[in-house]
Amino acid sequence: MPRGDGPLRSVRVFAPASVSNLGCGFDIFGLALERPGDEVVVRMAEGSGIVAVSVSGDGGRVPTDPERNAAALAVQGVLDRTGSEAGVGIEVRKGIPLASGLGGSAASAVAGAVAADALLGSGLDRTALLECAMIGERKGSGADHADNAAPSLAGGFVLVLPGRPPEMVALPTPGDLMVAIVHPAMEVETRRARTILGDTIPLEAGVEQWGNAAGLVAGLMRSDWDLIARCMRDAVAEPVRARLVPGFEQVRDSALAAGAVAAGLSGSGPTIFAICRGRKAAEAAALGMSGAFRDEVDVESDIVVSSVNPEGARILEWS
Amino acid sequence: MPRGDGPLRSVRVFAPASVSNLGCGFDIFGLALERPGDEVVVRMAEGSGIVAVSVSGDGGRVPTDPERNAAALAVQGVLDRTGSEAGVGIEVRKGIPLASGLGGSAASAVAGAVAADALLGSGLDRTALLECAMIGERKGSGADHADNAAPSLAGGFVLVLPGRPPEMVALPTPGDLMVAIVHPAMEVETRRARTILGDTIPLEAGVEQWGNAAGLVAGLMRSDWDLIARCMRDAVAEPVRARLVPGFEQVRDSALAAGAVAAGLSGSGPTIFAICRGRKAAEAAALGMSGAFRDEVDVESDIVVSSVNPEGARILEWS
Repeated sequence: MPRGDGPLRSVRVFAPASVSNLGCGFDIFGLALERPGDEVVVRMAEGSGIVAVSVSGDGGRVPTDPERNAAALAVQGVLDRTGSEAGVGIEVRKGIPLASGLGGSAASAVAGAVAADALLGSGLDRTALLECAMIGERKGSGADHADNAAPSLAGGFVLVLPGRPPEMVALPTPGDLMVAIVHPAMEVETRRARTILGDTIPLEAGVEQWGNAAGLVAGLMRSDWDLIARCMRDAVAEPVRARLVPGFEQVRDSALAAGAVAAGLSGSGPTIFAICRGRKAAEAAALGMSGAFRDEVDVESDIVVSSVNPEGARILEWS
Repeated sequence: MPRGDGPLRSVRVFAPASVSNLGCGFDIFGLALERPGDEVVVRMAEGSGIVAVSVSGDGGRVPTDPERNAAALAVQGVLDRTGSEAGVGIEVRKGIPLASGLGGSAASAVAGAVAADALLGSGLDRTALLECAMIGERKGSGADHADNAAPSLAGGFVLVLPGRPPEMVALPTPGDLMVAIVHPAMEVETRRARTILGDTIPLEAGVEQWGNAAGLVAGLMRSDWDLIARCMRDAVAEPVRARLVPGFEQVRDSALAAGAVAAGLSGSGPTIFAICRGRKAAEAAALGMSGAFRDEVDVESDIVVSSVNPEGARILEWS
């Protein structure tokens, strides 16, 4: 990493949005997107600890209280872990829509952790960075799982094995895999999307889910598109959560009709993802989904077509 | 397949025992063993349909009623499917202990289906044979899943995706994988082992289970023994079923202490399997488990050390 003499004064980091769950992988699968993403700048400042937090691109809705801001909590995690008494200022530039189901809290937290680590030169390993990011995401979304933070940090398709710390297993994806994303002008509160699931599931749905999760890994590792299509289905969360997203079934079906291999809720929604072979198919799926949201429930939406982000969070600038 | 002129008069088939579930794969994973196994002879006979059923090696406990015998039901499935009006006699030679959790009903049914198909020259494909075998197993054990029948039929480590028909996905295993089996002198009734599970499971246990199922597939496909060890654990069935097998925890722990990579209930038990690297480790694990059953609960047991059966059911003899 090229840098001048003397300590760093500021670091700017990009961390990508991510699609979690991916059908059968509730709380365990996540996939990093090329875009959108959040940026976080961490600067050395007078004093000790986090002395300032600012946020832009959020319409004034993300808290700037360091005790409630995902990026700041992650930075504090790095400070605590390294015993640093440095003073830092934090600037968050939101690129990921709020409450969209694209891992925005996780991306801010990951960017904060990576930036703080670089600024302090603390050299934390990936697992430690993930733990710091999870501190931030936990407050932001109530989540205690790393299926957004892990791909945002490491890139690619990640299996997260629950545990303390969680273990990340990188999985390959077929080279022509593209993701179509449609984000409708509605919001789903992550906490509510979790509480409506309840604490138990039917055993039969569980068997379907772990069969599909196992089959999806085999499909990814063999680039077997038929197996991917067969297995990227959610027997557990999506059937319950779909009612929080008006038009969900029609939008998903429009993606499949346009040639998508699989489609479903991104995280807790309302964003819907479609996995496609090649850019043209992904563009067709995105337009189909956007049109279905408009025609079925009269809701406008933003679309993104993205390849897989293979590297995860990255430092954009340092000085 | 070498055979003389004229129609076959009899076919003898071997179908191997299998370990199902394998920790995290309740109802979806199965592994075929080199031994033990069941043999079924199907012979042309006067009349139409199943005219005789005999069973040996079972201490007189397997029903010979064609409506209740797993092999006979599978043979009848082949007769029905092919529209044959042939008359056949069936001889079942049990090599797999009854109610052992080693897929004995499934093996008899698989052997019956394969033998009948060969005898009639009907050339059913693997999926059709699996469906015929499942007819037999369903009556025998109440099971409506193919995690024993599929590996007994096809060999190797198999992922069974539930469905009608179920889909079989063959998974590789590391070349040095060996299985230690200890079958204690006690029985667990398969139906009871299923009913005590209830109809629902905690969502949290489900997340652990599908994470582990996904991780185990990655571990098998990469021959990553650490990942296999990390993931071959049952969060759902084994914690409940263990109480049906006195000494379970101590026996499992003795396998791990002897160097096994993972250990758990084979199917619904009481047989306990251990996955090991190499024959010596498997022998040590088998002796350790057998000793623990003796020391902890004063129960004698049979041990088997087996490699993976890569081919599944096979024709031994025809005339």
